[in-house]
Amino acid sequence: MLDELKEQVYRANLALIENRLVTLTWGNVSGVDRSAGVMVIKPSGIDYRSMSPADMVAVSLDNGEPVDSQSLRPSSDAPTHLALYRAWSQIGGVAHTHSSRATTFAQAGRGIPCFGTTHADHFYGEVPVSRRLNEAEVAEDYELNTGRVIVERMKSLDVESMPAVLVADHGPFTWGPDANAAACNAIALEEVAAMAMGTMQINPSAMPLPRYIMDKHFRRKHGPDAYYGQQCRKDSF
Amino acid sequence: MLDELKEQVYRANLALIENRLVTLTWGNVSGVDRSAGVMVIKPSGIDYRSMSPADMVAVSLDNGEPVDSQSLRPSSDAPTHLALYRAWSQIGGVAHTHSSRATTFAQAGRGIPCFGTTHADHFYGEVPVSRRLNEAEVAEDYELNTGRVIVERMKSLDVESMPAVLVADHGPFTWGPDANAAACNAIALEEVAAMAMGTMQINPSAMPLPRYIMDKHFRRKHGPDAYYGQQCRKDSF
Amino acid sequence: MLDELKEQVYRANLALIENRLVTLTWGNVSGVDRSAGVMVIKPSGIDYRSMSPADMVAVSLDNGEPVDSQSLRPSSDAPTHLALYRAWSQIGGVAHTHSSRATTFAQAGRGIPCFGTTHADHFYGEVPVSRRLNEAEVAEDYELNTGRVIVERMKSLDVESMPAVLVADHGPFTWGPDANAAACNAIALEEVAAMAMGTMQINPSAMPLPRYIMDKHFRRKHGPDAYYGQQCRKDSF
Amino acid sequence: MLDELKEQVYRANLALIENRLVTLTWGNVSGVDRSAGVMVIKPSGIDYRSMSPADMVAVSLDNGEPVDSQSLRPSSDAPTHLALYRAWSQIGGVAHTHSSRATTFAQAGRGIPCFGTTHADHFYGEVPVSRRLNEAEVAEDYELNTGRVIVERMKSLDVESMPAVLVADHGPFTWGPDANAAACNAIALEEVAAMAMGTMQINPSAMPLPRYIMDKHFRRKHGPDAYYGQQCRKDSF
Repeated sequence: MLDELKEQVYRANLALIENRLVTLTWGNVSGVDRSAGVMVIKPSGIDYRSMSPADMVAVSLDNGEPVDSQSLRPSSDAPTHLALYRAWSQIGGVAHTHSSRATTFAQAGRGIPCFGTTHADHFYGEVPVSRRLNEAEVAEDYELNTGRVIVERMKSLDVESMPAVLVADHGPFTWGPDANAAACNAIALEEVAAMAMGTMQINPSAMPLPRYIMDKHFRRKHGPDAYYGQQCRKDSF
Repeated sequence: MLDELKEQVYRANLALIENRLVTLTWGNVSGVDRSAGVMVIKPSGIDYRSMSPADMVAVSLDNGEPVDSQSLRPSSDAPTHLALYRAWSQIGGVAHTHSSRATTFAQAGRGIPCFGTTHADHFYGEVPVSRRLNEAEVAEDYELNTGRVIVERMKSLDVESMPAVLVADHGPFTWGPDANAAACNAIALEEVAAMAMGTMQINPSAMPLPRYIMDKHFRRKHGPDAYYGQQCRKDSF
Repeated sequence: MLDELKEQVYRANLALIENRLVTLTWGNVSGVDRSAGVMVIKPSGIDYRSMSPADMVAVSLDNGEPVDSQSLRPSSDAPTHLALYRAWSQIGGVAHTHSSRATTFAQAGRGIPCFGTTHADHFYGEVPVSRRLNEAEVAEDYELNTGRVIVERMKSLDVESMPAVLVADHGPFTWGPDANAAACNAIALEEVAAMAMGTMQINPSAMPLPRYIMDKHFRRKHGPDAYYGQQCRKDSF
Repeated sequence: MLDELKEQVYRANLALIENRLVTLTWGNVSGVDRSAGVMVIKPSGIDYRSMSPADMVAVSLDNGEPVDSQSLRPSSDAPTHLALYRAWSQIGGVAHTHSSRATTFAQAGRGIPCFGTTHADHFYGEVPVSRRLNEAEVAEDYELNTGRVIVERMKSLDVESMPAVLVADHGPFTWGPDANAAACNAIALEEVAAMAMGTMQINPSAMPLPRYIMDKHFRRKHGPDAYYGQQCRKDSF
């Protein structure tokens, strides 16, 4: 069971590389087994090319402590991931990258407007940007507070229809039912951000999609009336 | 015969991947055998890397129903493809992508101006953008209505000399004598869109090509006086 | 001798692909053997992946007719290449691409300013853009006239220190002592064009290099006082 | 010992290629063994694909002369590297590239603002741009003077917390404890430059990070309180 989760998390981490979302080691994906109370995440500072599924680190969902006796150090961003899993019982995977275009929006402090159906297929509306962390939040428990600021930003939003946020100054976090879905959403987000930058270049007064098109696209892929081939399924990586 | 068409459609779909036009599963190519009354198209939501020619789905040109007893589900965009084949008897292949730069123009609601001979080699004039679908068209038979809106937009144009359209808010559709030509046009369109974005950046008052150059480039590749090596031929993939 | 030239031209054509300068079949490199009076060039409309050295086409420098009895058709751009070889006895190779950023400048009708030492290492000053061909020049002997317009534009320039031109509305031609050098210059030109676009974006009032830096960089790579490792040598591909 | 250094320098040079920082042969990495008084650097004008570790050139830190009897010529930029090693005893590796976006800033004469945490993880504040070399500095000992201008620009800065500089008109130099770290910083710099260009596009009034976030990110990766997985370690390539 844990081995399967490690394999899945390993593959989702590799998917970030294969889709060119990760420079050096800037990125990590995790997945959870809620019945076992365990989160599995990429180890800290390990080269993606030399990683194996067994290197994935299992920590307790409760306290973040490693579950295996002999394990590598979990990613330094583990407390952020844990904060999201604790706040939202409906998610099973989280991905964090510094992918170029999504991070560009985060650095600019701008949400990603929903300019087209590619966006609406994955994210229901403008991808939100969090507030900047204050000095106290940065000084102590920085990674945990990053998670708290994300949860605060998403409070008025539905985390199932908006599986992504941009942390101001920092970069994107995405999530989904499992690690694979979280990675898929990271891939979609980067592409959607690139298209939004282009749209703003060639039409500075471009407007977001009307709601009826946004609704249609999101619902043909998600929820009870979905009929469109879902590309971000379990085991698709 | 059908096997050959499936092989050709399979290869044309892979060509989209090899040319980096497709993120995740965002794209599909189809081809037709008009004498058999059959359209072959990529299956819905299948990972490109695990696909084989036998996975391509054959449906009736008349009613869109699968022709094989045991087949995967056809791409959800199949009704759009069928609408184009029914409207235009001269085409044999259709491709749909969400390629980054062509989709950018679709999102911006702008046609792609014919700024150079690369464009004129493939598309005779500005690549048109459709109108936005209205609420009723989106609510019911959305994919079919997408096809109808394309046909409406192309009514005053020649689909042989302009084998591409941008569906507003959505992305590009291209076509041609067969699946391979449709994919080739999708590849050309993305590159032409990238160059147009650059041209608009460095010379905001750039003007389209004069007609005599546009005519020359299009005709040296297409029609009875063509003498230029055609890159988008049958079996070239 | 001819086999060696075919091998060299073949490799130079592949170098364009490996450096992502060519979409579909948009590009061709040639080389000459002046003592034999022969130009070797890529065949017309052939897929780069299925080409072999023996497919390269040898034509007479005098009249452009194939030298071998059984040969493929030469690239349709052959008359342009021939015009350059006839005008400039000092060159031994010519490359033509529709590479994205160099073509962008050609479409915008703008030369590429010499903004930095990367540019000056290869091109002594602003890369010039030709005038647009007039209606008569396009109507008859279009490819030959393209060569003539290039030669006209270069009349006041030194083709050894400026081995590149942008044909207005069309794209770049580069040249050099052999096919390999011509391809190298095409690669350098595309990168230099990309950097120039970026420079214009972040500093719209950026000025070209002062002459003393331009002189230094060009001369440390070219001419009698060269001491810098030359990257575009015979056989380097 | 020297063989190990050559192997390390070789790998760091290849890392530039693998990360697409180098067009043609535009780049070089070096490393030093201070106890032996030796710098190892990429040979001049050699194709990266045909290079082996044994081709790396060892020169004296004192006078720049080759240490081995039969060696290739050292990179023409060797005097610049030597100037940095002599000025800063704390560094063990230097990298120089003409990577596209970092060079764009150098050409524009603009530093790279610290717009986000990706930047702050690697570079403490705005990446500085040097002054332009004057005519005398270019005329004689150009490469050595390039090093001197870098050292002059860094005088008021800490080379450990700011391991990068942009030489005006030219391009980036980066450094670190060893060749690998220098290459890592070159990779990070290019990505950070790309994101900064995007940030300036979508928010022209974007402001640099506040100091408390910059401090946090830099210190969690560097110095005595570091706890974040360091991606740029010895032997990571």
